Amino acid sequence: MTMNYKPLIYSLYDIGAVKFGDFTLKNGQQSKIYIDLRLIMSYPDVLRAVSEAIWQQVNAFEFDRICGVPYTALPVATCISLQQNIPMVMRRKEPKLHGTRQQIEGAYEIGQSCLIVEDIITSGSSIIETANDLEIVGLKIRDVAVLINREEGGKENLHQHHYRLNAAFTLKEMLNTLMLHEKMAQTDHHIVNSLLHETA
Amino acid sequence: MTMNYKPLIYSLYDIGAVKFGDFTLKNGQQSKIYIDLRLIMSYPDVLRAVSEAIWQQVNAFEFDRICGVPYTALPVATCISLQQNIPMVMRRKEPKLHGTRQQIEGAYEIGQSCLIVEDIITSGSSIIETANDLEIVGLKIRDVAVLINREEGGKENLHQHHYRLNAAFTLKEMLNTLMLHEKMAQTDHHIVNSLLHETA
Repeated sequence: MTMNYKPLIYSLYDIGAVKFGDFTLKNGQQSKIYIDLRLIMSYPDVLRAVSEAIWQQVNAFEFDRICGVPYTALPVATCISLQQNIPMVMRRKEPKLHGTRQQIEGAYEIGQSCLIVEDIITSGSSIIETANDLEIVGLKIRDVAVLINREEGGKENLHQHHYRLNAAFTLKEMLNTLMLHEKMAQTDHHIVNSLLHETA
Repeated sequence: MTMNYKPLIYSLYDIGAVKFGDFTLKNGQQSKIYIDLRLIMSYPDVLRAVSEAIWQQVNAFEFDRICGVPYTALPVATCISLQQNIPMVMRRKEPKLHGTRQQIEGAYEIGQSCLIVEDIITSGSSIIETANDLEIVGLKIRDVAVLINREEGGKENLHQHHYRLNAAFTLKEMLNTLMLHEKMAQTDHHIVNSLLHETA
């Protein structure tokens, strides 16, 4: 974590985008952490800060197109597209039944480079699905930029597909930063503390 | 059409968001016009101009929240949210099966006013569906802002539900403006001409 993301990480907690307690995840697993970055759509300043943090990971490179992994990352991709003037394309999760049938919407040309952005990476499977669809229509994928790396094999999975992960910070870095946050509830503080010791 | 939307309307044609020919619409009907504003996501300048034109229709009013009708209007809603600092909420087309089950995502409070934005209104049915879902969670809907009014009963349908339509221009106004566009292909010019005479 080379940049100072403390204000952003505190904001994510303050708006309730990062919660601690007992949650059941998509895959049925239990988790003490629930990260729901969809909430940032209701906080334009936080949306801008998240987009900026993600963009900083890859701003040394050039991209012809940008694509957010549906659906949470779509406002982030839109924000970066507008700020950096990078044309956006979008992946539909399901093919359309009428009109111009294609999985990738927007304007693009074969051979153009496309940056993929996502809020958080776990195994990387939804990122890889998105990358595959972009490659099918001829776009070239190398870089994936995310805010949070959960460090659960996503980086390695992307690497096997020859994609490079650029993450603003890891989940552990985020938890370590939150330990210093004075506004954090004491019960949450205990959970974060035990999580950090589990994963140490 | 009080403002000068000529440059925007020309741009929509130039990028291929407005096409003329023989098309089959969602409902199976044949149409000589195909309007696909999803394309504007790949033209940040056009996305900004569309968002500005839509916002100009309602900028005399105040809103606590903004919601785009899925999916085409989502980048527009994001753009207005960022430019005007209005928190965004989003309607899922299908309810989620896990996590926090709700049709409306984002942060909001009961009684807050919410602006609905859409690219184009035909019958208004998808706008009314979106408004219903927003009202179910306690948001108050009065204004709907769109770029193009096809004048196919949408305004009257919204009115029956006590919503007010604010449109930048009608389809007919757009076609009349396009008649002056020098870059328009001659075959398209003929189609527009006959469309204007049909609907006169």
